[in-house]
Amino acid sequence: MVEKRLLGKKDVWDIKQYVCKAKRLDIETGKRIVLFNKQDAIENDIYVGYRVGLKHGNKVAIGIVDLTDHMVEPGQVGIFKDLQQELGLKDEERIEIRHIKKPESVVYIKKKMDKIELKPSEISTVMDELMRGYLGEIELASFVSAIYINGVTEEEVIGLTDSIVKSGDTLNLGRHLIADKHCIGGVAGNRTTMVLVPIIAAAGISIPKASSRSITSAAGTADTMEVLSGIDFSIEEMRHIVKKANGCIVWGGGTTLASADDLLIKIRHPLSLDPKGLLLASILAKKKSVGANHVIIDIPVGMGAKLHDMADANALGADFVKIGRRLGMSIDVLITDGNNPIGRGIGPTLECIDVLNVLANNGPGDLREKSCIIAGRLLEMCGKAKKGRGYAQASSILESGAALRKMRQIIELQGGDSDVKPADLPIGNCHEDIIADRNGKLVGYDNRTISRLARAAGAPNDKGAGILLFKEPGEKVRSGEKIMRVYAESESKLDFALKAMKKWETYTLKKIILNELG
Amino acid sequence: MVEKRLLGKKDVWDIKQYVCKAKRLDIETGKRIVLFNKQDAIENDIYVGYRVGLKHGNKVAIGIVDLTDHMVEPGQVGIFKDLQQELGLKDEERIEIRHIKKPESVVYIKKKMDKIELKPSEISTVMDELMRGYLGEIELASFVSAIYINGVTEEEVIGLTDSIVKSGDTLNLGRHLIADKHCIGGVAGNRTTMVLVPIIAAAGISIPKASSRSITSAAGTADTMEVLSGIDFSIEEMRHIVKKANGCIVWGGGTTLASADDLLIKIRHPLSLDPKGLLLASILAKKKSVGANHVIIDIPVGMGAKLHDMADANALGADFVKIGRRLGMSIDVLITDGNNPIGRGIGPTLECIDVLNVLANNGPGDLREKSCIIAGRLLEMCGKAKKGRGYAQASSILESGAALRKMRQIIELQGGDSDVKPADLPIGNCHEDIIADRNGKLVGYDNRTISRLARAAGAPNDKGAGILLFKEPGEKVRSGEKIMRVYAESESKLDFALKAMKKWETYTLKKIILNELG
Repeated sequence: MVEKRLLGKKDVWDIKQYVCKAKRLDIETGKRIVLFNKQDAIENDIYVGYRVGLKHGNKVAIGIVDLTDHMVEPGQVGIFKDLQQELGLKDEERIEIRHIKKPESVVYIKKKMDKIELKPSEISTVMDELMRGYLGEIELASFVSAIYINGVTEEEVIGLTDSIVKSGDTLNLGRHLIADKHCIGGVAGNRTTMVLVPIIAAAGISIPKASSRSITSAAGTADTMEVLSGIDFSIEEMRHIVKKANGCIVWGGGTTLASADDLLIKIRHPLSLDPKGLLLASILAKKKSVGANHVIIDIPVGMGAKLHDMADANALGADFVKIGRRLGMSIDVLITDGNNPIGRGIGPTLECIDVLNVLANNGPGDLREKSCIIAGRLLEMCGKAKKGRGYAQASSILESGAALRKMRQIIELQGGDSDVKPADLPIGNCHEDIIADRNGKLVGYDNRTISRLARAAGAPNDKGAGILLFKEPGEKVRSGEKIMRVYAESESKLDFALKAMKKWETYTLKKIILNELG
Repeated sequence: MVEKRLLGKKDVWDIKQYVCKAKRLDIETGKRIVLFNKQDAIENDIYVGYRVGLKHGNKVAIGIVDLTDHMVEPGQVGIFKDLQQELGLKDEERIEIRHIKKPESVVYIKKKMDKIELKPSEISTVMDELMRGYLGEIELASFVSAIYINGVTEEEVIGLTDSIVKSGDTLNLGRHLIADKHCIGGVAGNRTTMVLVPIIAAAGISIPKASSRSITSAAGTADTMEVLSGIDFSIEEMRHIVKKANGCIVWGGGTTLASADDLLIKIRHPLSLDPKGLLLASILAKKKSVGANHVIIDIPVGMGAKLHDMADANALGADFVKIGRRLGMSIDVLITDGNNPIGRGIGPTLECIDVLNVLANNGPGDLREKSCIIAGRLLEMCGKAKKGRGYAQASSILESGAALRKMRQIIELQGGDSDVKPADLPIGNCHEDIIADRNGKLVGYDNRTISRLARAAGAPNDKGAGILLFKEPGEKVRSGEKIMRVYAESESKLDFALKAMKKWETYTLKKIILNELG
């Protein structure tokens, strides 16, 4: 290495320290990678996967080691993109490398694996070391698995929620009444948030909504809002928008709210692990970080939705209410019918068109109805409507055009075109209709396969890709009639989606015999 | 991409396929990384961490996606080193990229998390997909955590063992009687293998020993043998050596025996997770893969060793015997005193010197004694000595010089200098003595801190680094007398080790009051 010296630091595994030249590498990997020359690595007992401390100016981070013979020279380290940003690094600057000790969290993760309840301070250490990059995927996956297998106590959920809130920034609107809304997800086309937020904001209540992008569905609220305006804002910008309009619809992942949660979600994804304790903490932390004190949670139950069982939904709902109260939030839970998609369009632009139509009082009835029910309940919770009068008030805010005007204000503040009309929004220029091959009654659509089909067609990356449903569940269908249309932005993607679809049952016509064997 | 076409493959997630130019990148990362240009990635819904299938000629592998703006162009993918080797790739060759479906293992890993016993076929799918690179660290860590938390049944251990054996090659010596030996580890300086193998081989029994390198200790048997000869051999070379000399001492990690095990160990390391079921399967698979049918297992118990409790050791030992029998192996277990290091030297070269001295009948008594006891028991198991006569026979093989001659033959076959003498072996040219600061009786050394000290001084990478113990447990020590000597290959490493040592209690002098509080 260029320089090597031993410092009299307090912690013994910290005293080995080198100074190197940094070389920026144009590789984005979702991890904090630092590339060492093999010669340096052998000399210093550093190996692939080893973790080192990095210091540049007053910024510190932990890097995971990759090795090379030629890409960087001895005395130089290559810094991948994710770390460059974290360290604020420009090429050829000097960087300090430190040996670090084993993360303290390892003890607590093992403790949780051994079925021992963690103290708040222990949970907070795990979240803190997670944020500082001390913990790799292996440690985090073990932590999440332990939570999944052993469960967590109510105290632990509160500890997790508090630590996740502390891991990021908070919004601090400085207002007394702050509402929020969350849906557990799984229902295709379910864009109630984009109808509800303008209704609530138009009623004079602050609703700083941070939404997510899709992971496995055809569109998240953030993906859909992105059709109309910007969604990637800092905390300060978000605060500014909400102070002006009472509401916003931004992408939570772009803010620094509840940051640890984004990292935990990445770990939960490959195995679709949704341990209840983490789900509760994750959602409650997001609400708490925006200062929400009146929250409504929508838990859809049904075939193809995330939850399939009323008992599970009731138990989860009860936990939300109880733990929310302990965290200083008034929470109401609505368990909703999640058997079928909501609205006519599935996919960012198609869902946007549904939302704009509902706001203009001519959209799909189910989306309007569900939005008004949930918004109404929230108005009642916040004391803006008398008990039992919320739905009527939400409807009248819609009918008066106040919600549409509010949405236009939010779109404008978020940098979009406030005069946007549904007809302005471009949908995929390749499409194909799906035709019924017999007469029958439409039982319904399968949320999961509808989402997969829309994704196969390009959604949510291709904003104009998706599915338009022509028939409603319960409706009679005649052979040769169109049931739905698949939109894509290129012929090859349309072709791919249609081929994929051959294996899936996206809709069901009523039949007596479901399968025959033998 | 350069070319894009849709193939009529059977599996729908397989039909999307592109052909790209490959660019080899000089980065070693321990993972199968493939670097996409961001433009290609967006177009094809590929993101950081996404897994794609790669095909080059008749070789296939799974790659994990990193992204770049400039390092590769659209239509080109960068291939990191680990994947280059796997695909046998040369620069600018064409490579096929395929979308793949979710690994089947995910279902079984979740099943194990849900406390349901896995069938042999399910375990074998997990191991198979692990070997094919379908599973990332997150999935594997979840699998290992589930095994740690929920335990495994005897049937599952057998399933795991069989799958691990099948994941690699087998030695197939074509001999009737094959012996092997394993130590659970944790005792510093414990090089009985290097004394025992030549004794057993000299007695005419095949003992194809595949040893490991150190992970957290000052030296593994493989690190120590490397001072004397090569250790990195193919299965064919290993077979050749054993056919000539009856024995070998090679590095298991360099062979293709029980390959899945190496990948599982990597996952177990960060949290030091040693779930009993995996430990059993891992060790038994290694023995089975060399065809061993008579195996002796050394389980040291004591402060600083891996096991601290007789009950745990007895239970583990009983499992080895029982499951070994079901797998067609006769297994004897010896539970040994693991409270103190064995031999005088700690660190590859210093341990080598002990071994050569014992083989020449003038080495440390404890190493000789322990080696003869274990070797004697193995001779009895194999029917080469009568019950109760094994120890005497092992001793006489040592005394006759037959074991030393056998070791020289093995060293020569493994490419080393068969005339090597202890005095030829270079030890670190920087050293410092640790001096007693009062009179007392030496209670003992702490295995764990002795190992850490030797590592801080540079072992096992610096072969000549380590510790030489001057006093035996139970011996009287006078103030000012030398207790041990620390060797390093550079002043800075010696300095680092000595600074580190200030925080550790490497040895204990008898005292009445252990601590004072208040």
